[in-house]
Amino acid sequence: MMVIMREGATDAQIEHVLKRIEDGGADVHVSRGQYRTVIGIIGDKEAIAELQLGAFDGVEEVIRILKPYKFVSKEFRHEPTMIKVGGVTIGEGFFNVMAGPCSVESAEQMMATAKAVKAAGGTVLRGGAFKPRTSPYSFQGMGVEGLQILAEARKEFGLPIVTELMDVRDLDVVVEYADIVQIGARNAQNFLLLKEVGMIDKPVLLKRGLGNTIEETLMAAEYIVKGGNTQIIICERGIRTFETYTRNTLDISAIPLIKQLSHLPVILDPSHAAGKRSLVEPLTLAGLAAGADGAIVEVHPDPENAMCDGPQSLTFEHFASLMGKVKKAAPAFDKVMGQVS
Amino acid sequence: MMVIMREGATDAQIEHVLKRIEDGGADVHVSRGQYRTVIGIIGDKEAIAELQLGAFDGVEEVIRILKPYKFVSKEFRHEPTMIKVGGVTIGEGFFNVMAGPCSVESAEQMMATAKAVKAAGGTVLRGGAFKPRTSPYSFQGMGVEGLQILAEARKEFGLPIVTELMDVRDLDVVVEYADIVQIGARNAQNFLLLKEVGMIDKPVLLKRGLGNTIEETLMAAEYIVKGGNTQIIICERGIRTFETYTRNTLDISAIPLIKQLSHLPVILDPSHAAGKRSLVEPLTLAGLAAGADGAIVEVHPDPENAMCDGPQSLTFEHFASLMGKVKKAAPAFDKVMGQVS
Amino acid sequence: MMVIMREGATDAQIEHVLKRIEDGGADVHVSRGQYRTVIGIIGDKEAIAELQLGAFDGVEEVIRILKPYKFVSKEFRHEPTMIKVGGVTIGEGFFNVMAGPCSVESAEQMMATAKAVKAAGGTVLRGGAFKPRTSPYSFQGMGVEGLQILAEARKEFGLPIVTELMDVRDLDVVVEYADIVQIGARNAQNFLLLKEVGMIDKPVLLKRGLGNTIEETLMAAEYIVKGGNTQIIICERGIRTFETYTRNTLDISAIPLIKQLSHLPVILDPSHAAGKRSLVEPLTLAGLAAGADGAIVEVHPDPENAMCDGPQSLTFEHFASLMGKVKKAAPAFDKVMGQVS
Amino acid sequence: MMVIMREGATDAQIEHVLKRIEDGGADVHVSRGQYRTVIGIIGDKEAIAELQLGAFDGVEEVIRILKPYKFVSKEFRHEPTMIKVGGVTIGEGFFNVMAGPCSVESAEQMMATAKAVKAAGGTVLRGGAFKPRTSPYSFQGMGVEGLQILAEARKEFGLPIVTELMDVRDLDVVVEYADIVQIGARNAQNFLLLKEVGMIDKPVLLKRGLGNTIEETLMAAEYIVKGGNTQIIICERGIRTFETYTRNTLDISAIPLIKQLSHLPVILDPSHAAGKRSLVEPLTLAGLAAGADGAIVEVHPDPENAMCDGPQSLTFEHFASLMGKVKKAAPAFDKVMGQVS
Repeated sequence: MMVIMREGATDAQIEHVLKRIEDGGADVHVSRGQYRTVIGIIGDKEAIAELQLGAFDGVEEVIRILKPYKFVSKEFRHEPTMIKVGGVTIGEGFFNVMAGPCSVESAEQMMATAKAVKAAGGTVLRGGAFKPRTSPYSFQGMGVEGLQILAEARKEFGLPIVTELMDVRDLDVVVEYADIVQIGARNAQNFLLLKEVGMIDKPVLLKRGLGNTIEETLMAAEYIVKGGNTQIIICERGIRTFETYTRNTLDISAIPLIKQLSHLPVILDPSHAAGKRSLVEPLTLAGLAAGADGAIVEVHPDPENAMCDGPQSLTFEHFASLMGKVKKAAPAFDKVMGQVS
Repeated sequence: MMVIMREGATDAQIEHVLKRIEDGGADVHVSRGQYRTVIGIIGDKEAIAELQLGAFDGVEEVIRILKPYKFVSKEFRHEPTMIKVGGVTIGEGFFNVMAGPCSVESAEQMMATAKAVKAAGGTVLRGGAFKPRTSPYSFQGMGVEGLQILAEARKEFGLPIVTELMDVRDLDVVVEYADIVQIGARNAQNFLLLKEVGMIDKPVLLKRGLGNTIEETLMAAEYIVKGGNTQIIICERGIRTFETYTRNTLDISAIPLIKQLSHLPVILDPSHAAGKRSLVEPLTLAGLAAGADGAIVEVHPDPENAMCDGPQSLTFEHFASLMGKVKKAAPAFDKVMGQVS
Repeated sequence: MMVIMREGATDAQIEHVLKRIEDGGADVHVSRGQYRTVIGIIGDKEAIAELQLGAFDGVEEVIRILKPYKFVSKEFRHEPTMIKVGGVTIGEGFFNVMAGPCSVESAEQMMATAKAVKAAGGTVLRGGAFKPRTSPYSFQGMGVEGLQILAEARKEFGLPIVTELMDVRDLDVVVEYADIVQIGARNAQNFLLLKEVGMIDKPVLLKRGLGNTIEETLMAAEYIVKGGNTQIIICERGIRTFETYTRNTLDISAIPLIKQLSHLPVILDPSHAAGKRSLVEPLTLAGLAAGADGAIVEVHPDPENAMCDGPQSLTFEHFASLMGKVKKAAPAFDKVMGQVS
Repeated sequence: MMVIMREGATDAQIEHVLKRIEDGGADVHVSRGQYRTVIGIIGDKEAIAELQLGAFDGVEEVIRILKPYKFVSKEFRHEPTMIKVGGVTIGEGFFNVMAGPCSVESAEQMMATAKAVKAAGGTVLRGGAFKPRTSPYSFQGMGVEGLQILAEARKEFGLPIVTELMDVRDLDVVVEYADIVQIGARNAQNFLLLKEVGMIDKPVLLKRGLGNTIEETLMAAEYIVKGGNTQIIICERGIRTFETYTRNTLDISAIPLIKQLSHLPVILDPSHAAGKRSLVEPLTLAGLAAGADGAIVEVHPDPENAMCDGPQSLTFEHFASLMGKVKKAAPAFDKVMGQVS
């Protein structure tokens, strides 16, 4: 950590900061420049990290040198984390496509979708049973009945399922049915939910929040790993920016960046980022090219009659066509298409 | 609602959209321009609102004409909502300052703070017992013990207390102790928490999420009102932008805008927006001038030794000075300083 | 155009708006809903487009239905624009890589770079002679001497050159030397410069501004086409967002979006978007996969001693490696690598 | 400057960086922590500032300690800059309101406006003769004729005039007529224009760019001061964010921040920030309360028939009412209303 004193900071102010750091048990190096004094703290212990040095008079800025996350970092674990779930291997070297509707609406819808997803080469079935909706007047999901329908589809087609957990009170039932538990973008900093899924033994699909930085996303993952669960897939799904042509702005750079910073698998959600069907294909391919380990795509048997996200949902035909292009391109990026064993 | 068809949309595509709307029970008006056909939907019922018209071939854009929220709107209720809590009246015409530390740390700290807040003219005491922290390694709050300390301070000084609820499982205990239940920025779209506080009989302080629009904030409030609880105070606390000099960018325009759109009281949180002590005073005054009904300010007996948010916390002396300026300026904006009766 | 009246707008207010539109020579359709009246304007002439209807009492919102640009739109010209310059064809079906240093620094530097760029398969040589720098204390470019060096490199290696025009007073000299005239991100809304390059007979590389929307970028292109110059290449180079790990956030969606909205070629600038060498390769490949017609990449013989943008510049070796991957991946996206004939 | 080496950086990489710095003529202090080595550079000379240390292998991050601007900083000049123009004093302690239409449209319009502005207490007359417009199909201003009309209005009513310079080729004529030369938001990083107005002897009103940080805005001002012109007024006018209810997001914090960082006067433009008439008053008052030295407000005799910015323009009546509130509030913030002597 570095403490940069303001121009004109007094000796007494500098001494006061130094004393606080030394009381905290760390050594310091003081560099007095022509204009400013800079205090370097050696031994960046946790106790020091929490010091409120920015609150001291005469302090201009406090600069952290060590990353605030540990267990999710590449420095902590050099080998990429590989996640095995229901016969599918997710992580470095593979490209897995998770697909399905925004919401589970009926058994027929899910059976038809699961069949189409599997036929086209998708390896994980998605579907929301509990839906976070901006409007209280929108469909809020089928709940447990939706989970049961997902389980039936899994039984029939052998695809593991990913579904969202919104409420700690639903933890047991979601864990009972899901193969991968999704934490949605709006709960990306719901720290108690993160703590809870840190204690389960199922993989977690963690979406980046719309207003969260890459570092905050890694900190959210750190919450989960700290609880003991290292099976995390991070998902880039677009951030809030001034551009309004797309629902969100897919931060494609986040994919290689997180792969450089962390050992965790990273996928993208082109459907929620774009909010427009016509962009799902180019964004999925861009994700593949940027090094993503997979994508999660909204597919619906009849988007016009979907209960949500119709405009960005692909038909089965579109999805099959997309998968054809993904398969064609994967080898150029040394990616093997995921498979259900 | 308006449906704008793409240039070159076919007659069959247009007919298909029309049929869907008419099946939904609404009337349409079709306007065929030289380049584009526009379909106006008359009778914007809820069933229609949920139609996935953007998913239809040939549709370029769907434009909503009615606002998506109802109960929180000024059209629904013209009279401003006034909230009475523990002898304090919050809303139009008054300026109430809520103050206290980021976290409850000890009885001594809270007693000293409550005394200073009251002496300076603050009317509500803030203090976090459950803390949402970006890092799992940061102090997470004292929990129920913190609530008990807050209650003692209230008993001694007569100030109602506002404290954050993060976990539905803590609902009963937080409601038992708090006078105003705070929903923090990171839970601004935690819809289940919003539903729960919609069913309590205590006022709710709802913070705008860092990545949420004004409309989404009003939708979050709508979740609460729909549950039956109309006692909501909306709090602007800064949004995420590219500017890095401040922790967040205080969206000062949100204050008059929400006051124009809704009957609910609006306050600002200058401390979290700025992240810098030196900005708290000018931002509080700006909020007052822009029409806010109050502010919530971080105050600590010893910011250098605070467990969180030290750099943006005011000392008692700073706070008293700020309150002096607020009191001096309030009459110019036809605001009466809030009081504890 | 649609005018949405406020709830509670009076008949007089509605009549007043109607009269204004009719005086402007357009027909209207009035739709009186339960809550709001909506006025549709038929015959969206230019005169109407400039009416200040938002200034009328009782008007809530004015919604434009036609796109504000015309000549750059796909509706105006269905065939993709192909640009031929110095033996190179840029546009649909091809992937051209433009490469070179941030600034022209010396003849040796440019000769070495041109050789390496050509050897690796780059088809256009970039290099700044006039540099827009945030700081007045930074190197501002070699000026005309830089242009002369670029011309020598072109003569020697046969690569057409792209270089930035900042000042209308330099128009003649830049046009004299450049094969493609670049308008930089900071001049993306320098309308007079746009007008000037609208009158030259050289292709223009138009960068999106850091704070500009896709629509504004197309409007900037419209300024150029309106002047008579239809040879425009649009370049996505990242926008300003709250994410700070990257210099800017590459808006990858802009690439397929602009290709859907316009007939103009679109390329990306991964170097300025990322600001980090390690991201240049994945972003270039992502651009290719998303449908870009090329990329413009910073390459320097000795990035450690570059006069600007060292951290994001590739060495010759890195660049050759990147080009190898691009060539390997291009066929999967039905792209042919550009060539100098 | 501090150079933070990557975890695992080799001794050779560290030595290589050290050598480069020492070759540049600066001293270093090396701090080897458990995980990372940090190199502090003592003697932060300009030559060092331009070193591309981020391009060196093993370097994780380069942190600047000194501010990149000098002449505009409070450290350079402690006394606030006061600008005297046409009998008006602008700067610390005063609140001056500049007002007038978006565009000069006719002599009648300007005469009527100047009269109303003066009567209400405005001290500077604004009006655009050269207009930067997003669309090439929009009105582009009256040009020199507009300047002549402004001059007539000045002659009649004694108000100094502020008008925008877009094109270096118009420098002489704009300087001839204007009392204050405005650099618009879209030219905030048009560095050559900044250099030119750095050499004139008229005050410059510098607007912050929509996508520019506070630091970049101060760097833009530094360009002007470096040329010799210290008479600069900085104007906050809103930045691009994800919020769409307002045209831009007024960054109110920028006002006290720039006043803390710089000796230059700061005003706000509530009209362009808001894009909505109903917000102009609360934002102007908020700016006053936050410490602004004035505001620039759009006023038009007939907003419904304005040639641009009608929706955000105030009528004379509105403006007089706003000025009444400003005058009432100013003393509470120790501000004296500006006057034309």
